[in-house]
Amino acid sequence: MPTRTDAIGWSPSGGVRLLDQTLLPGETRYVEIHSLEGIFEAIQALRVRGAPLIGIAAAMGLAAAAKKGTAGSKGEVTMQWIDEAIRRLAASRPTAVNLCWALERMRGVAEAAFRSKKNAAGVAEALRAEAQRIWDEDAAMCEAIGAAGAELVPEGATILTHCNTGSLATGGIGTAFGVIVTAHRQGKGVDVLACETRPLGQGARLTSWELARHRIPGRVIVDSAAGTLMARGEVDLVITGADRIAANGDAANKIGTYSLAVLAQAHGIPFYVAAPRSTFDLTLESGDDIPIEERPASEVVTAPGVAAYNPAFDVTPGEMITAIVTDRGVARPPYGQAIRRLFD
Amino acid sequence: MPTRTDAIGWSPSGGVRLLDQTLLPGETRYVEIHSLEGIFEAIQALRVRGAPLIGIAAAMGLAAAAKKGTAGSKGEVTMQWIDEAIRRLAASRPTAVNLCWALERMRGVAEAAFRSKKNAAGVAEALRAEAQRIWDEDAAMCEAIGAAGAELVPEGATILTHCNTGSLATGGIGTAFGVIVTAHRQGKGVDVLACETRPLGQGARLTSWELARHRIPGRVIVDSAAGTLMARGEVDLVITGADRIAANGDAANKIGTYSLAVLAQAHGIPFYVAAPRSTFDLTLESGDDIPIEERPASEVVTAPGVAAYNPAFDVTPGEMITAIVTDRGVARPPYGQAIRRLFD
Repeated sequence: MPTRTDAIGWSPSGGVRLLDQTLLPGETRYVEIHSLEGIFEAIQALRVRGAPLIGIAAAMGLAAAAKKGTAGSKGEVTMQWIDEAIRRLAASRPTAVNLCWALERMRGVAEAAFRSKKNAAGVAEALRAEAQRIWDEDAAMCEAIGAAGAELVPEGATILTHCNTGSLATGGIGTAFGVIVTAHRQGKGVDVLACETRPLGQGARLTSWELARHRIPGRVIVDSAAGTLMARGEVDLVITGADRIAANGDAANKIGTYSLAVLAQAHGIPFYVAAPRSTFDLTLESGDDIPIEERPASEVVTAPGVAAYNPAFDVTPGEMITAIVTDRGVARPPYGQAIRRLFD
Repeated sequence: MPTRTDAIGWSPSGGVRLLDQTLLPGETRYVEIHSLEGIFEAIQALRVRGAPLIGIAAAMGLAAAAKKGTAGSKGEVTMQWIDEAIRRLAASRPTAVNLCWALERMRGVAEAAFRSKKNAAGVAEALRAEAQRIWDEDAAMCEAIGAAGAELVPEGATILTHCNTGSLATGGIGTAFGVIVTAHRQGKGVDVLACETRPLGQGARLTSWELARHRIPGRVIVDSAAGTLMARGEVDLVITGADRIAANGDAANKIGTYSLAVLAQAHGIPFYVAAPRSTFDLTLESGDDIPIEERPASEVVTAPGVAAYNPAFDVTPGEMITAIVTDRGVARPPYGQAIRRLFD
């Protein structure tokens, strides 16, 4: 039975219960959501974040809203309402493809339910069951990623990671962080360097919180310290998650990931990306076509009268990635063929 | 007449008037300092910072304390008191060599004053005059650096810089920032990308404040965005200051500078360092011997129970630096010879 995240859950009344990640690590507060608007706001404001988890959250939020019967003018769930809800939720964050992937699964289930003449309650129940499956499958994929990735981790390795990719970002133990957790559980004696991940501090706030929960030895560093620590020989490998991986292995991820890949290459350090198959977008030939979210300038402090420029993601070319760790095993370059094989 | 910083000055009663940089950009507050303990605290708490400016501040603080007659048990300035004061001030920040350089000048002047049998007031006056010379010379060196460096800046260049190296870091218009100011004044139409410079935000808070004052177009970015902006062709050159440069051109500077140098090299972008001759330490063969200050972990946010690792500086190997811009012109590799020539 895979470990499942407690960053999300169902409330007794069928709503979505979310750990508000914007308040961590200082405060552990849950919010309960029953509406599309509520889940849209939670995703956009990063109360829930992490590519796999926003897919799960959107699916669960859609199911909760359908159950609540906030749908349509007559309070009924129609296919038109569902299509509109999916269009709206898919626009909440542009870069992570897991969101669209999960919502397309929900659309398929709704269409099938309507075809089989289910009533509104039956459609809502089918949506809830599919959202639960998406979550369960993600938790299982995390375990598989963890097992595959841990084989790449040497005994006593110092692992540098970026952003947050653990149980606060997925339905289970995590992607890159799942590899760390698995290696730790195997007694490999790993040590973690967690980049703080500006501007929103997902490493400083969230990964450090997860390190403390798992009692994994680790330290937080400013993002810009990675280079000198690599030069000093203090980093054995780098592993990050991804928000969208194109057919050629180009991977979009939190801003700063590309810099880490360049630095790792310059220092001869392996650079791994860990992601479930739901993060791959085979409709895109390369990372050039991945939409990059630009977040509000207000997330970056400046003096009055000076603007900030705040791209939230960057793209690391596949050829700079030593290997991609997936729930179907480890893919290595050239990625075109290796990635196609994951989906056979 | 060179532009002089207003980040420091003499108060009417002979104290040092410092702009408290920890409060910028939100608040413009000056503190007045008359004691060694006061200037020590101001340097260590980064109320005044920037390699050249801490040299100036230490010299002025020593002069102010000597004038105040807080010296010795009988309130007298003795050579023993001065030696002890210099030892104490030199320990306030370990990496920037300008601090030791300025204090050694002050020691020499004090020794000469005692040799010529000056009384305490005469010694204090000699110290004040020397501190003023150190400041004046630094302002002139900034102008020379600006003029030499501006020749390296193409028309319409987008210049990426790190930390703060302007009038808040020097006695004049700045080192790297002095190059930007000079190019801007020459009508080159430069645009600036200022790295926010974690953990203390000298770019986000201070360089952005200076950009606004000079009305130089610029934007603040998170440190980790530099790589992807270079990859997208949005950076024409990188220029930073330095805290200490060894005889072979290895340069210690704010954490993150080394990463920028690696990234610039990987993208074929020139990487320049700008510094006055007071930043060179020819007693050190290489950067391996430069002491790197580790600042308190509390400067980096983490969850309870997780440590931070907070080295405040890193060392960029000379061979990665396209050119070093000094008050005696532009030095290019191989640096051993080029740097010796600066001091002929």
